[in-house]
Amino acid sequence: MKIVPRSKVIYSFSSKHKPAAYVKTEEQVLLKTEDAFGGQITDEKHSITALDWSKVDGATGPIFVENALPGDTLVVELLDIKVEGKGIIVTVPSHGILGEKRFRPTTHAVPISNGGIQFDRKVRVKAKPMIGTIGVAPKTGAVPSGSLGRHGGNMDVKDMTAGAKLYLPVFTEGALFAAGDIHAVQADGELCVSSVEVAGEILLKFHVIKNRAPKWPILEKSDSYSVLACGDTLDEAAELAAESAVKAFMRQYNWSFEKAYMFGSLAVNLEISQVVDPKKGVRATVQKDFVALDSFLS
Amino acid sequence: MKIVPRSKVIYSFSSKHKPAAYVKTEEQVLLKTEDAFGGQITDEKHSITALDWSKVDGATGPIFVENALPGDTLVVELLDIKVEGKGIIVTVPSHGILGEKRFRPTTHAVPISNGGIQFDRKVRVKAKPMIGTIGVAPKTGAVPSGSLGRHGGNMDVKDMTAGAKLYLPVFTEGALFAAGDIHAVQADGELCVSSVEVAGEILLKFHVIKNRAPKWPILEKSDSYSVLACGDTLDEAAELAAESAVKAFMRQYNWSFEKAYMFGSLAVNLEISQVVDPKKGVRATVQKDFVALDSFLS
Repeated sequence: MKIVPRSKVIYSFSSKHKPAAYVKTEEQVLLKTEDAFGGQITDEKHSITALDWSKVDGATGPIFVENALPGDTLVVELLDIKVEGKGIIVTVPSHGILGEKRFRPTTHAVPISNGGIQFDRKVRVKAKPMIGTIGVAPKTGAVPSGSLGRHGGNMDVKDMTAGAKLYLPVFTEGALFAAGDIHAVQADGELCVSSVEVAGEILLKFHVIKNRAPKWPILEKSDSYSVLACGDTLDEAAELAAESAVKAFMRQYNWSFEKAYMFGSLAVNLEISQVVDPKKGVRATVQKDFVALDSFLS
Repeated sequence: MKIVPRSKVIYSFSSKHKPAAYVKTEEQVLLKTEDAFGGQITDEKHSITALDWSKVDGATGPIFVENALPGDTLVVELLDIKVEGKGIIVTVPSHGILGEKRFRPTTHAVPISNGGIQFDRKVRVKAKPMIGTIGVAPKTGAVPSGSLGRHGGNMDVKDMTAGAKLYLPVFTEGALFAAGDIHAVQADGELCVSSVEVAGEILLKFHVIKNRAPKWPILEKSDSYSVLACGDTLDEAAELAAESAVKAFMRQYNWSFEKAYMFGSLAVNLEISQVVDPKKGVRATVQKDFVALDSFLS
């Protein structure tokens, strides 16, 4: 097993980064990860106002994956996610879905133990650790780890949990994969701009599908596939996600656009991932009964 | 049991409508309903291009409910939904989430039997009949049955199924409730602007909560409450839904705005209802573990 330490954190996705590790497909890799604040906030005395915003939503890596070349799909099998015992939630004035309201910067530290988060003396929430930032180097330039796109990034998808598989288009030799920014739990939306931000460990392994790739990252759960699209607005993200799902039906069944579009009303669930990052994220989720992975690749 | 025939269909919600029936609370009511096209399209020979658009998404009613007064909440308990044996799905150029693409007007008739919809020779979808249009008379004016707002209307919520309860703010004496536009199944989004449109029957009964009302309709399922908000964009609808959920936490726990807002990231799922009506619909869904109905009423 290859272990990549927490010190190997990057705050952008770029083909220019030097690999932190070289791994083979099928080899288990353990990423030790910083929390979303890069460890800058450790208790309620640390105000978000002192934060260095160039060091948020960082990811451990990048990992050079053997045999991954542009035009391929990097398959990321999420085997396990462990979190530390304390999470941090913050409100940041002007941020989040209610950013136009007047409110104070607040830091709230919550204990995490026995599979639960003690949000308040009386309110306990079941933990469901998920990965906020996960992706590969984009085709060109450097994308900050707080943003997202076709390369993945800070997608903040609540179902990016142990047991899921992620299919990412590869744009550069070795893919240059990185992941971090674990949340002990997050609901669809991530309303206030942060969730239960926590340091931890991600155990995963890679496969490669040669010469075919999805347009957007695809998330596989036990019973469904989701297109993970993003846009400047939820409406734009929803349209892009829907378009990929309708195209998948056209490939799967050899249907006309019209027929595939109609089927979308019956079988494509548009789901909000988050509404608070530089781009908004929407998933188009289809049960495996109705579509195969193959239909998302071209 | 009171039966309201299909002929009592209205194509707007308005306090000016004469009641089609007067019912008591706790009395069972059976609404016989037209499909979304008011029966104008019965097979694939009927093109959507000949449709009279003033007669779509109609609702059977209005029902004057005894003891419902402005400022109250009308509780609608959905007991059963039955559908006829044939559904109609259409594509309409310039309509739906991919309305900017070029495509033809299409009418697709699908048989419905034994709890399933035969979309295609090889593709069968499980039926989950839900109500597209359901609401009360708005405070002022007449709202077309194809639109939606705080009074309800064409909300197209996939969970508006038998077993659910809907809480609507009452704006006029008797509430003047109506419902119709059943879909044999619909996924979140209703991508192509129609789903499996079908005539049918809705069995329901009413209760009234006196002198308190929610800002937006609230949908109760077995384990959750959802705020059903709408706006000109998904982003606006999401913000309005989120705001109501955060306010409910402030009432429920006597928390500051900041604390309630943070909790939103853990416990409020923003869900897309539909993206294709005159206003877009987003639900803010919270598990009953974390909020009581009471906290949504003021």
